[in-house]
Amino acid sequence: MNIIVDTARLVEELDRLAGYSDAPAPAVTRVVFSETDRRAREYVKGLCAAAGLAVREDAAGNTFARWAGREPSLPAVATGSHIDAIPHAGRYDGTVGVLGGLEAIRALQRAGREPRRSIELAIFSAEEPTRFGIGCFGSRLLAGALDASAGERLRDKEGRTLDQWRTAAGFAGDLASMRLPVGHYAAFVELHIEQGPLLERAGIPLGVVTAIAAPATWRITVEGEGGHAGALLMRDRRDAFCAAAEIALAVERAALGTGVADTVGTVGVCDVFPGAVNSVPSRVRLEVDVRDIDGARRDGVLARIRQACDETAARRGVTVKAEVINADAPAECDPLVVEALARAAAVHQLPFEKMVSRAYHDSLFLARIAPTAMLFIPCRGGVSHRPDEFAAPEAIASGVLVLAEALAELAG
Amino acid sequence: MNIIVDTARLVEELDRLAGYSDAPAPAVTRVVFSETDRRAREYVKGLCAAAGLAVREDAAGNTFARWAGREPSLPAVATGSHIDAIPHAGRYDGTVGVLGGLEAIRALQRAGREPRRSIELAIFSAEEPTRFGIGCFGSRLLAGALDASAGERLRDKEGRTLDQWRTAAGFAGDLASMRLPVGHYAAFVELHIEQGPLLERAGIPLGVVTAIAAPATWRITVEGEGGHAGALLMRDRRDAFCAAAEIALAVERAALGTGVADTVGTVGVCDVFPGAVNSVPSRVRLEVDVRDIDGARRDGVLARIRQACDETAARRGVTVKAEVINADAPAECDPLVVEALARAAAVHQLPFEKMVSRAYHDSLFLARIAPTAMLFIPCRGGVSHRPDEFAAPEAIASGVLVLAEALAELAG
Repeated sequence: MNIIVDTARLVEELDRLAGYSDAPAPAVTRVVFSETDRRAREYVKGLCAAAGLAVREDAAGNTFARWAGREPSLPAVATGSHIDAIPHAGRYDGTVGVLGGLEAIRALQRAGREPRRSIELAIFSAEEPTRFGIGCFGSRLLAGALDASAGERLRDKEGRTLDQWRTAAGFAGDLASMRLPVGHYAAFVELHIEQGPLLERAGIPLGVVTAIAAPATWRITVEGEGGHAGALLMRDRRDAFCAAAEIALAVERAALGTGVADTVGTVGVCDVFPGAVNSVPSRVRLEVDVRDIDGARRDGVLARIRQACDETAARRGVTVKAEVINADAPAECDPLVVEALARAAAVHQLPFEKMVSRAYHDSLFLARIAPTAMLFIPCRGGVSHRPDEFAAPEAIASGVLVLAEALAELAG
Repeated sequence: MNIIVDTARLVEELDRLAGYSDAPAPAVTRVVFSETDRRAREYVKGLCAAAGLAVREDAAGNTFARWAGREPSLPAVATGSHIDAIPHAGRYDGTVGVLGGLEAIRALQRAGREPRRSIELAIFSAEEPTRFGIGCFGSRLLAGALDASAGERLRDKEGRTLDQWRTAAGFAGDLASMRLPVGHYAAFVELHIEQGPLLERAGIPLGVVTAIAAPATWRITVEGEGGHAGALLMRDRRDAFCAAAEIALAVERAALGTGVADTVGTVGVCDVFPGAVNSVPSRVRLEVDVRDIDGARRDGVLARIRQACDETAARRGVTVKAEVINADAPAECDPLVVEALARAAAVHQLPFEKMVSRAYHDSLFLARIAPTAMLFIPCRGGVSHRPDEFAAPEAIASGVLVLAEALAELAG
């Protein structure tokens, strides 16, 4: 039988999932290990169970829902993404890959397919770096890209550790035990909104991702000297916020300076201490994100930012500490999985474009242990991480259809 | 009998008051209408009652403790300051004027003085702008420098009004009724740490303040466009934080640009929305503080800041809204009160210097309804609004002694 996607049901489930939010609609805020995250996990696990999938959770809260194949001892084919959302985000980032992945499995079930390999839906814990400053700790741990000391080392702003958070959320056990060996999955495919404008601009419904850009995250701490905003004379100041403002502009300049559109640099977080209108800031923490599809060019940008930090520190008499949270290598997608996606699109006469992902994803780490590729669908205006993020139902349906077709081929 | 200050007791009381804090010692955080503020108020009111003073509170939480004179129907002489503290502040700002004022009254009582006029200790509600963005709402209301609509208009970050906060804290009644007529007090004297380095550098124990600098506070809101930090290309960005960083540096440049040491400009607050490392900031709120002893020069600095806001808005395609929270005129102190302080210092052979206050104080508003002056004592390194703020016991004792002597003269 043909594979038919139940678009109405899937859109309704996406709407329901968006309702689990700590921000007023249409904004979605769903931070890992919050009560809202817990309730959203329960909702998704309930849908998986209703589809007859066997659900397993690991020590970091990664969740796996398996549809057993005819030969369940073979390495499974996997798909999935994440359901956590940064503050005031939208409803499609990650969730399309989770609920769309589930609908792909259900569509294969309805079509009477009986794949040889099992097909597993993975819901990775905390793709977003909101709580601990580092993205993808769930898939990093799976891929061995983060060692078990992360449980004690990763801390939120208040100093509470990942181990404290995950234990409180009910995820116990040894982080080292989570690691999946190379070969555990026969293939991994992640369906995701593009989070950029290229597909929409080109009027093409699908993107087959061939590489994922190399992200780097730094935490920059500026220490100056505080004092009374009225009484401390300008010439006596070592204002941490003025220094941080210079550094933020240097990040922008360094990213623009490569002259290449693929280089991006962002300061998304700025915490000012003590944070009173009549007090000269004594300490500022910036979080900086730099990405490029070329790892060496990205590292050149980071070097220029470090140089700017040093110059500002020397000129203003402040100390600037730049701490590397992560600086990952770019990932190449697996040609065989890429070609499976291309064939699946062709089966349904859906045009596609091969492209790189400038956003990073759990696939960046899955690619280290499994043949991996990603499938992108357009989102309106290329907008993401905002309440007005939007993917059309027909775009989601096309993505799920091609995902299901590819999973069927990969699972045999 | 001679006036003798009980320094040990006063220092102990300052220590006790510092214990009412929402930050770990030595830092003091005591925000108006918090539970900690309530407990600190109870502590100080208890000390006033123990000294036989009659305590009254008004609708905004200003507290008045009166030692009745021989002719209680005459306008009283008043002294006082505030006990609220910005986040992570020290223990002497404001509190020296409150507990030191109380000790001055007790010292006069112990010396057997029976002044003609009553002497009143005033504890002004929220000199610091922490909660509502505007400093001195207590003394502003007393002086008619803020009208009663402030109860509904002034809001904290979450949108809760001053009226909601003060009612919850137990202060009811009409804000308009608080206003004190010109002539209500025969004189007002505020004892305070200098919050600057001049007295310490000069090795002089006392400053008699002849004028108070003109403060201005602006709230600047930058609205750009958010998006995914990986996928939104640099050329397509309207990054609110980069724009805000430019404006912050323009504030610094404008303050330095007068070439006069008395001009200061500070950005003490920077809130970034949504505030995630992988999200381009869509909105930033800055709080800006500019002061000068020359009101016109200060307004020139503000004009240059506004120009910089407009330029940044035009160049970056963001909107910048600059909202004036307050822009007060400087205050001249009353020559008769200044001379009373000078004579009191001379009585005790304590050297003093006449000076201006660059920090602002409740005295800025009391000066509108009463003959007013201030008495400064040195603080270590000129440091204030920091946990390491320090005034030596002997410096505090000298200040209280001269305050008591001056109050006695002014009360007759």
